[in-house]
Amino acid sequence: MTSNAPKRTIISIDAMGGDRGPAAVVAGLALSAEKNPDIGFLLHGDKPTLEPLIAREANLQGRVEIRHTQEVVTMDAKPSHVMRNGKETSMWATIDAVRNHEADVAVSCGNTGALMLLSMVRLRKLPGVNRPAIACLWPSRNPGGFNIMLDVGADIRADDTDLLQYAMMGASYARNGLGIARPRIGLLNVGTEEHKGHPVLKSAHELITNAAEDANIEFVGFVEGVDIPSDQVDVIVTDGFTGNVALKTAEGTANLMAGFIRESFTETVLAKLTALIAKASLGRLKLRMDPRRANGGVFLGLNGTVVKSHGSADPVAISSAVKLAFTLARSGFNQKLAARVASSGTLRQDDMSTKDEEQA
Amino acid sequence: MTSNAPKRTIISIDAMGGDRGPAAVVAGLALSAEKNPDIGFLLHGDKPTLEPLIAREANLQGRVEIRHTQEVVTMDAKPSHVMRNGKETSMWATIDAVRNHEADVAVSCGNTGALMLLSMVRLRKLPGVNRPAIACLWPSRNPGGFNIMLDVGADIRADDTDLLQYAMMGASYARNGLGIARPRIGLLNVGTEEHKGHPVLKSAHELITNAAEDANIEFVGFVEGVDIPSDQVDVIVTDGFTGNVALKTAEGTANLMAGFIRESFTETVLAKLTALIAKASLGRLKLRMDPRRANGGVFLGLNGTVVKSHGSADPVAISSAVKLAFTLARSGFNQKLAARVASSGTLRQDDMSTKDEEQA
Repeated sequence: MTSNAPKRTIISIDAMGGDRGPAAVVAGLALSAEKNPDIGFLLHGDKPTLEPLIAREANLQGRVEIRHTQEVVTMDAKPSHVMRNGKETSMWATIDAVRNHEADVAVSCGNTGALMLLSMVRLRKLPGVNRPAIACLWPSRNPGGFNIMLDVGADIRADDTDLLQYAMMGASYARNGLGIARPRIGLLNVGTEEHKGHPVLKSAHELITNAAEDANIEFVGFVEGVDIPSDQVDVIVTDGFTGNVALKTAEGTANLMAGFIRESFTETVLAKLTALIAKASLGRLKLRMDPRRANGGVFLGLNGTVVKSHGSADPVAISSAVKLAFTLARSGFNQKLAARVASSGTLRQDDMSTKDEEQA
Repeated sequence: MTSNAPKRTIISIDAMGGDRGPAAVVAGLALSAEKNPDIGFLLHGDKPTLEPLIAREANLQGRVEIRHTQEVVTMDAKPSHVMRNGKETSMWATIDAVRNHEADVAVSCGNTGALMLLSMVRLRKLPGVNRPAIACLWPSRNPGGFNIMLDVGADIRADDTDLLQYAMMGASYARNGLGIARPRIGLLNVGTEEHKGHPVLKSAHELITNAAEDANIEFVGFVEGVDIPSDQVDVIVTDGFTGNVALKTAEGTANLMAGFIRESFTETVLAKLTALIAKASLGRLKLRMDPRRANGGVFLGLNGTVVKSHGSADPVAISSAVKLAFTLARSGFNQKLAARVASSGTLRQDDMSTKDEEQA
């Protein structure tokens, strides 16, 4: 496969999404281009704005093709409105470049709801996928530093077979994005005992248990919120309502604690002096908790991979999202995921097994 | 009312619940007794074990009545089993003392599920309450340091009228436990826009909006996970599944960050030295995040108040749960909550309004 792959992986970028505007996006691409010679960019947005930004970046020369678009999807635009009226937007063009096979993967910092809806309609769902999902990287105690959690907000509903598919899609992501050969999957619940939780969770527990061996995953069963960053699990599966609440609750908790840390080191003159001395230790802490390192929610279950960067992403965060997009595109992730979902939907005797291919 | 109140508020305590055993419980009571001369204790458990523990504590002399019980509810006991066979346990006796009006409020560090089920069956639901809830104190940016969140796990289900009742019960708790005259209520969702979320949330939004003025609460509408510790809200309302996941996710996030903080200050010799110097600042931080300060989930919606202390509570945490129980009992909280729930269930023209009483 790789012998026929082009030297450069082409990433389709929405230059106009995000709170910080195209300057932050272009600066992020420059960081990525400097580190990785195998990336090329298709950049969608306002050409007169983008040209001088790119001209300033030595690392981007000859690496970026600009596709001019007239319009921008605003952060507060209603997804359905964008769907009807957004043909001239940079977001639309960014996704269509993947649809048309001009690019391998798409990245946008724009409006999540609009990006999800456009991705679903333009790329369409993979055969056999009922609900696509958004997967995020969650800081964890595992050696790689991150676990995968899905769905964190593509759809507020999920039935038992959706949760089974999330388990399969999350496992594919863990293999191809994090390099984990046999991912450990946990199903989020309010307790680890099998009798706990909604009926749909009990049924999903059974479905995933039965599918685990063929899918080469280790199903650890129910996990609780406290286990999400644990090193006993690699992928946490839940519906998009619960996942979104959990993700934002963790964000709120981290913000609160970071605020307390700042205050505890500025309350007295002595504490301020101490903070100077403790700078290296606090810096190491900040680095480990830096949300920019984990930037990039991935839309799973579509004919093409879309990486959603934070709306407020700065150049470092955008570069991190680009790196994730590159890794997934190079691994042939989406084709493997499609095979995985298809096989989990077949009867066992019909399963031709794509295990070997996916682990290769 | 207060003129007829007994000088001492009697707190019914389960001495045998909890991971640390009766010694930690008795030490916690001694801390409370030292600080507060208006508390008396009804202590349920194994008399031969408890007598020497109490004899050692000067502050507890003449303040504790021991009620001997033969049996203990273990932490892994099935609630239904305790319900059928638990008549001789210290937990059962602890709750029955409230039922029999021998005590004003109950405190236990034992098995949450069993405590909830026993409380529901022995104390029964308040008239008009469909589902009781567990409310917890959540560290926040508000001046008092805590917000109230409910339900965090009494029942995994909640319909729109349940969520309305949670809003009313949480508001009563905020008034009587935290001294907030006009509590601000938020309804947990995946976005703040009114079109977001499950239908039951939209319907609850409407119910709470309509009830807000009569109930003297400020309904701030939908809030997200990131807003739970915010200073824009005092009470966060959600179903017991989502609330339990959020609570445990926050716990997991706080644990992870605390671990990172420890490691960042021990990675190098210089960092270890720095940590010594930073000890005061780190100590202040630890104090603000100390879960023992917020110890005590409160069961709301029953004929009597039950405070659930952490299973692993140490004496400081137990004393903190006792203080909360005392504050709620002294405020006549449960009677006011009953009146509030009753009034929210009546038609507006029938509402005789208990506002003045509750705010007194």
